[in-house]
Order: sequence, then C-alpha cells, then structure tokens
Amino acid sequence: MASGSLVSFLNIPEDSHFSMQNLPYGVFRPTPEQQPRPGVAIGEYVLDLSALARAGLFHGPVLKGSDCFLQPSLNAFMAMGKPAWKEARGTIQKLLSVDEPALRDNAELQKSALLPMSQVQLMLPAVIGDYTDFFTSKYHTMNCGIIFRGPESPLPPNWLHLPVAYHGRASSVVISGTDLHRPRGQKRPVGKPTPGFGPSAKLDFELEMAMLVGPGNELGTSVSVDDAADHIFGLVLMNDWSARDIQAWEYQPLGPFLGKSFGTTVSPWIVTLEALQPFTCEAPVQDPPPLPYLTGKSCRTYDIPLEVALKPAGEDKSSVVCKSNFKHLYWTIEQQLAHHTINGCNLRPGDLLGSGTISGPEPESFGSLLELSWDGKNPLKLGNNISRTFVEDGDEVILTACCQGDGYKVGFGTCSGKILPAIS
Amino acid sequence: MASGSLVSFLNIPEDSHFSMQNLPYGVFRPTPEQQPRPGVAIGEYVLDLSALARAGLFHGPVLKGSDCFLQPSLNAFMAMGKPAWKEARGTIQKLLSVDEPALRDNAELQKSALLPMSQVQLMLPAVIGDYTDFFTSKYHTMNCGIIFRGPESPLPPNWLHLPVAYHGRASSVVISGTDLHRPRGQKRPVGKPTPGFGPSAKLDFELEMAMLVGPGNELGTSVSVDDAADHIFGLVLMNDWSARDIQAWEYQPLGPFLGKSFGTTVSPWIVTLEALQPFTCEAPVQDPPPLPYLTGKSCRTYDIPLEVALKPAGEDKSSVVCKSNFKHLYWTIEQQLAHHTINGCNLRPGDLLGSGTISGPEPESFGSLLELSWDGKNPLKLGNNISRTFVEDGDEVILTACCQGDGYKVGFGTCSGKILPAIS
Repeated sequence: MASGSLVSFLNIPEDSHFSMQNLPYGVFRPTPEQQPRPGVAIGEYVLDLSALARAGLFHGPVLKGSDCFLQPSLNAFMAMGKPAWKEARGTIQKLLSVDEPALRDNAELQKSALLPMSQVQLMLPAVIGDYTDFFTSKYHTMNCGIIFRGPESPLPPNWLHLPVAYHGRASSVVISGTDLHRPRGQKRPVGKPTPGFGPSAKLDFELEMAMLVGPGNELGTSVSVDDAADHIFGLVLMNDWSARDIQAWEYQPLGPFLGKSFGTTVSPWIVTLEALQPFTCEAPVQDPPPLPYLTGKSCRTYDIPLEVALKPAGEDKSSVVCKSNFKHLYWTIEQQLAHHTINGCNLRPGDLLGSGTISGPEPESFGSLLELSWDGKNPLKLGNNISRTFVEDGDEVILTACCQGDGYKVGFGTCSGKILPAIS
Repeated sequence: MASGSLVSFLNIPEDSHFSMQNLPYGVFRPTPEQQPRPGVAIGEYVLDLSALARAGLFHGPVLKGSDCFLQPSLNAFMAMGKPAWKEARGTIQKLLSVDEPALRDNAELQKSALLPMSQVQLMLPAVIGDYTDFFTSKYHTMNCGIIFRGPESPLPPNWLHLPVAYHGRASSVVISGTDLHRPRGQKRPVGKPTPGFGPSAKLDFELEMAMLVGPGNELGTSVSVDDAADHIFGLVLMNDWSARDIQAWEYQPLGPFLGKSFGTTVSPWIVTLEALQPFTCEAPVQDPPPLPYLTGKSCRTYDIPLEVALKPAGEDKSSVVCKSNFKHLYWTIEQQLAHHTINGCNLRPGDLLGSGTISGPEPESFGSLLELSWDGKNPLKLGNNISRTFVEDGDEVILTACCQGDGYKVGFGTCSGKILPAIS
C-alpha cells in the first residue's frame, strides 16, 4: 500500500501501471492541432509538463528557467542528466501528492494540465538519432543458431565475450498503435537456387526492451561500465518486427537489413531507471568473466515480467503467446552502453538501444514466433480453432511489461501494432 | 573550352574542380561565430546562397519566397526535388556568368556573397537521419571473400541478386578534415581461443562514394527503379574507416558494428546528378538479370575517376596508393535506392547511402589497404623507405574524384582525415 507523499489526490486504480512510484515520461498532443509536448503518465491521466513549466512550478535549482518541457520532444530533458531527472521526479511527485495544494486545489490548472490519457495522441517520445539493436539473450541466440545453422555450436565464438549488436534503421521506428504493411522482398525458397519476390511469408514479432540514452558522449571518448547508468534515461517496450524469409536470404555477410527496416514499434512511456530501482536483481553469472572494460563494480539487472499477446484478425480476444522476463538477458544495459562507446562511437540524447529478443529458458518464454513455432514446424494453438506459425494479415501483436511492487505497480503500458496486407 | 553563359566573370582556374558546369552544394560558416548556411563552390570561392536569397535573387516560380537557403543545412532544399534543383542551378549559373550584371556589377553583394573558400569553415552539408552502406563492387566483395573465407565461392549466394547493404552509424559521420582517434576494442589474434583488448592494429580506409537523398518516401511505400534518380540529390566522396581486426571478431552473425562506427568521413561538396550528366556511361552487364523491381528502362552509371593518397606521419608529400573509378560498381545507385525501399522502408531527405568500397579489377584499383596489402602480406612501398600494411598514427588519407569534361572539370574536391593515437 502506498503511503505518505506517495498517495495522490487523484484516484489511481490499484492495477494501474502508472502509479505515483512510476511517473514515466512521454510526448503527446492534447488535440491533433496542438503542438507535441512532454507529459507524465499518472493513473488514467497525462500530466502536461509544459503547463506546469509555464505555471512556474519547476522552481528547483536545476530546472528553474529551463525550456526543456516546452520542447516537442524529451531530448533536451534527457540531455540534462540525473540531477535534472531527480529534481523533476521530486517536483512531480510532490505536485501530485495528496498533501500538496498547488495542483490539488487549482481547478483551472488541473483542467489544463491533467488530461484523460484516452483523449490525447501519444507520440514518439524522442527524436531518435540512431537506433542500435543488441542480441543479448543467450536462449534466443542459441535458438536462432539451432534453427538457422544446426545444433552444432549454436553460440557464435564471440557471443560470451561481447554484447553482439548491429545498427538498425531509425527512420522506421514508430509509436505503439501504428499499423504497418507486410513488407515485400526477395526470399529464396528452401532447395531453390534462385530467389523469388513477394510479400514476406514469415513475418514475426520480437519481444524486446530498449533504453533511451540520456547525456551522450563526444566522438572519440568512451563511457565506462560504472558510469553507464548515468547515461541511460529509461526503458521502453519494443517490437522489432522481422521478416524471417527476407532476413535469411539477405543477412550474409553484413547482417539484417530489409528484413527489419520496414518498422520497429516502441511503447510511448519511458520508465526511468529511478522508478525501476526497487526491481533490481543480480544479473546472470557471466562465464568466462568479461574483459575489464565490461566488468563493473556490480552486475545487476531488472526483474521485469513481460508478456506478448496476439489478437488474430477478426477475433475480439487476444491470446497470450509468451511470458518472459527482462532478467533473462545475459548482458546488462550498462555493459551494452559501455561496449557501444569503447571504440569512441558517440551516443546522442534520445538514441535507442534495443536489448534483442528477450527469450527465457522455457519454451513458453521464447520471445518470437520463429522460436515459439520452431520456424513454423509447431503451429501455436490460440483457441477457437485458430493457430499461427507466423503473423498473418490483420493480426495485432501486443507487448506488455509490469513490475509488481508492494501495493503498487510500475508498468510500461502496452506496445502494440497491427499488420496490414502488403501493398502491391 | 567553356562558352556562352558558362563563362563566369570570376577567374576560374582551368584545373579547378569547381567549374561553372559543376556548382556543387555545401554548408559553411563564414566565420566561427556565424550561423551555418548553404553555399555553392565556384573556382576558389564559396557563393553564399543565403546572401543571394536575402537579396531576392531567387525569383523563379519554385524558389521565390522559399526559406530553403536560410536554413543551417541543405535538407529543406533537398526535400524540394528536381524542379527546385533545376531552377536553382539555372539562377546560380546565370548570376555567375560574364553576361549578367546583377552580381558582376554589385561590389557590395560580391563582398558579402563571394567568400574565399580557404577562409570559411566547411561543415556537414545535411542533417543525416540514417546512414546506409552498400557493398556493390564485385571486385571488393570477391577480394574480401578470399581474404576472410578462402578462395572457394568468394561471392555470397545473394550477391548477384540484390545490392547487399547494412545500416551504419549516423552520429559518427564527420566532415573532411576532422581528425579521428584510432579505435580500441576486442580482437582475437589468429590461432588464439579468446580475445584481447587494445587499439586496432589493422586500421584501414575504404574508398567510397555516397548519395544524399532528396525527396524521401513515406513508410510503407516504395520508390521504383525508374523513379529513383528523382530521389537522389547528388554524390559525395566517403571514407568508411574500418578497423579490420575489431570487425573480423565482432561481425558474425549480425554484421559490422564497432569496427566501423568510430568515424566515417565525407567530402563537403555535393555534386548533383545534373552536373554529372555528361559523364554517364553504361553500367556493367548484370548476369543473371535482376528481378523486375531492380530492372529499369536503362542501366547507366557514371565515369568518375577516383584516387586515394596517403600522407605518412611526418612526411611532406603524399603518395597515391589507389586509382579506381565509380563505373566499376556492379549495382547502380538507382537500383540501390529502389532496393532500400522495396520493403516499405522510408528514406528521408539528407539520408546518406554509401556505395561500399570501390575496387576495380586491377590490383592498383583496390579501394582499401586490406586489399592493397592483401591483409598485410604485401606491404605497400610509399617511397622514402616508407611502407604500409595498414594506417599508422599520424597518417592522413586523402580521397579525390574528378570528371574531365571538354575544357572543364566536374570534381568533388577532397575527402581527408588524419588518424590520431588511441585514447588510453
């Protein structure tokens, strides 16, 4: 049960993802005509941070006079780093608390600053300069290795030494709720010498989470693994849609390209590392021990239960197809960020770093249909005589994540997307 | 010999890359305190397009009243497409011609709008949303295949069917003249079971050219190969620096990452397709014939002679180490762009699409030290008892490209960068 300053004057349903302990950041338009602005999710409302800033309610030493909440994205706030994040969280928590009159007793300010979430348009929370995708679940890596290359040594030789990653496509990152067309492309049917062309017949989701970078680093400098958390603003859910047939044909020798770049869906609310603090846990044991630049003073991760539901075309109900957990990942987010910069590569505020598909050890925790249906060999039964090997036209895929605290939740909401037929 | 309206009132040296036939676009600051603005290279000068726009000299139907030349990047102008590009070129050519008094006889305007190139600061010409790198030289692909995987089937099975590509890192694209630190990272010495850590010992250049996208396409739509040229603003030189030892260890199975993302250097002047028109030629025969979406009404490329020089640390003179030509590339830029969008991936104005290393058939036309020294086995002699297998600290690498017309040149200037020691 929440207590003290963590009780709000707003009625927050007990099963809400957006408790006083959460306060995730996003960007929204109150109406389609209005400018995008930063907000915080609280219960069933969005708190308009631009309205609070205009009312002069951010008067701490770091944020006083800042225009970071008058921007159409969170990049400026992300760039300010932990002192600004800590101060903003304190101010917002206080303004929403039952003991504080400034917002509680100001009906006019409430009207302009507290908007029903169902009525606003949620948008991409940041301008994403670059999007990188890691490959940090050992279970996913081994499943893919067995499916694509056979059971002998399914883990690539480098995998236990470094968090493998590739550069993704930033332009096609979309916000939850955006419909995507099935991609077309080249694929080579099994046993055929030459490729054909057409809509992907193996369209898949990938259950991922992704961090958004806070302060960046200059080109030519590196961020140490112990400093890395200061450069991470928070986490979102991410569905890295994948066309397995296009990917299988194109990816040698330079990696995934058109099999991924037709769309990547992220959830709108960025849950901060501060809100996730109560849910830290030990990371998996890393054997062999990583090189010194990947070895921090501690090696902790987050216990975040994850779920994927599939709502088949024409059905009212969705079926849960995967239950996994963020803690299954082998490499921590701090190790991912430190590795990304060890060559001097510059990260910028708002950059998106995906975890890779989050598969766990049990078959029901596999984070993609490729794994769940074992490349189509074992169709998934979804009830109502419906089964799936891969995503069909009209299917909606819904990812969700929620940490259960003592009487409160810290959740990510949902990350959803529907697949439309290929354009001919 | 240039004639008619193609004679300028300015004295343009005959060996200048920046003739009246060229007029490449860039972005510059007149002084470090001033805002970046678009310009055109002409002889030894930069023509400030913001000054011409403020003077009301763009009064054609497309550009009249536009603020595209008052922006700090060329993205807005790029987005306007061919009608704007054609009109701007006509206006600029006329204003610079010996027959036109508007600029010729206005000493005050000349003083503000014509600045010695040696005195301005050249900058990245566009905000690059995404950077993609292709792999379109058959010679380079085969050389890499033999070096990395042996002489059996050096061409991957997909290579003759599609222009292979990967997503690169946009944040670390830098303008010519920017020094870069040697990257550090993991690499595994030959025959060792586990990796070590340290500065790259196999730092390389890659001779490339890159297109900058003009009008983009919406997510979910594709650009046909016959329309692709309308989406290409122009070309620059590009050095895709590569740390071969880091790359070799990390790149399986998801492609190049930290072996590339420490820096990519581009030349400042974008030569438009209109300026390159006189230098078109037949593209290489493609066998097997590509799929219909890659088959245009014609299949033409550009005859652009290329050169790489290396100036060793402490030496006054550079040595030419490679002579190649853009026409050696197997896949055309139109095919690259059409392929990139066939899955619905959206391109945005200013996106950078690299060609991949431009190696030709002769050993002296190989576009990287990996190939020129055959992975270090055949050191290159540079005179003065200096030899190189890979790039050493203090070395400067200078790319250049120039088309020879009838009495004039259409050149790209240079794309240069010096390697500084690794930061410890």
